[in-house]
Amino acid sequence: MTESPAPAAPADPFKDSGYREAVVDLLGVIAYGELSAFERLAEDAAMAPTLEDKVAMSRMASAEFGHLEPLQDRLTELGADPAEAMKPFVAAIDGFHDHTAPADWYEGLVKAYVGDGLAADFYREVAAQLDPATRDLIIASLADVGHSEFVVERVRAAIAADPRLGGRLALWARRLMGEALSQAQRVAAERDSLADLLAGGVDRPGLDLAAIGKMFSRLTERHTERMGRLGLDA
Amino acid sequence: MTESPAPAAPADPFKDSGYREAVVDLLGVIAYGELSAFERLAEDAAMAPTLEDKVAMSRMASAEFGHLEPLQDRLTELGADPAEAMKPFVAAIDGFHDHTAPADWYEGLVKAYVGDGLAADFYREVAAQLDPATRDLIIASLADVGHSEFVVERVRAAIAADPRLGGRLALWARRLMGEALSQAQRVAAERDSLADLLAGGVDRPGLDLAAIGKMFSRLTERHTERMGRLGLDA
Repeated sequence: MTESPAPAAPADPFKDSGYREAVVDLLGVIAYGELSAFERLAEDAAMAPTLEDKVAMSRMASAEFGHLEPLQDRLTELGADPAEAMKPFVAAIDGFHDHTAPADWYEGLVKAYVGDGLAADFYREVAAQLDPATRDLIIASLADVGHSEFVVERVRAAIAADPRLGGRLALWARRLMGEALSQAQRVAAERDSLADLLAGGVDRPGLDLAAIGKMFSRLTERHTERMGRLGLDA
Repeated sequence: MTESPAPAAPADPFKDSGYREAVVDLLGVIAYGELSAFERLAEDAAMAPTLEDKVAMSRMASAEFGHLEPLQDRLTELGADPAEAMKPFVAAIDGFHDHTAPADWYEGLVKAYVGDGLAADFYREVAAQLDPATRDLIIASLADVGHSEFVVERVRAAIAADPRLGGRLALWARRLMGEALSQAQRVAAERDSLADLLAGGVDRPGLDLAAIGKMFSRLTERHTERMGRLGLDA
């Protein structure tokens, strides 16, 4: 009986400095996204109609902040400065928030649910292309910790009480989607590293155009599902 | 040899409905204090001069929120509605914050350090008069999780760079102390239960006027120490 050859150890993708840079960018954009989600949710909590709602929204904010720490630790391990890694994405993410400041409590709820859901789906798609350690870290940092059932319940009840609200919130969610896409394009145009992550490399399979198209249909489908759960037309 | 009598089981202080009410009030005021500290710190984080500072301030905010949950759970155990328990204190605590909105990042830092420190010292003094379970819960909910070293470092460095800032911040801290006392008086006047907690009851030793005087000197002493650590004249 001949011994079968030992399986080749998987090549360390971080030996490729382009890959390392792209992962630093990706963790940086996710980290700043969570930091600013924390800030905006905490701000939106001020519009809560009841103390109970204020606590629930503040809990969502705090959960976002809790996700930040492991990303920062990993950035440090990779030899990057967490603040420096976040900086390139401040303008785009702040731009998104400035253009989508909720006018009232319900717009804030929909933004929290639809916006964070979309971002999380997108980052999960990107993470699927990466080494297992990075992938697991990103997926954990996007975990919905069960707070969003609260949003669904509140939005549905409000629409039941005032059906016109449903029309307004559906328009609002479309605007959120448009702004998110326009800021994402801006980031992709400015940071080649992130576009390259999706496209793959010499040693790493990536997505061709057809696969990227499929990814976008999956994102759209899940967005439509979320809208349906809120009782809104996508 | 005669057996010594079994020690009397300590009377359950919660059988006294006045005591239970007072504890519900106390947990309610601490809980709303932490919820609003969360909100204000998150708001102040927007003024941070660097991303690193923004993360540090957001971490302090998040830590405040983390303290809220055990207080809410205990309120529920005591048969109280957490939101209802917080409500009576919203006006006084919001009043304090409205009158002490920081004009800049450094005023925010000093408020976080001096204001939270003073409140924590006060609640610890009250907790010392209570049953062990309530006392331990309150003390845990006030634990400084080591974030405030960051404040000391930032404030001292800023004063070293601009000594006039020291004078302005010392005045600011005096205003914080004045506002805190005036809102605390308002609460004490409106909620007999809390005043009674300190004064004790038939079965429970309380503080006489001399002891209350001593408590206030301890609070003032610790406030002066905190000011000294920041490099400010009390």
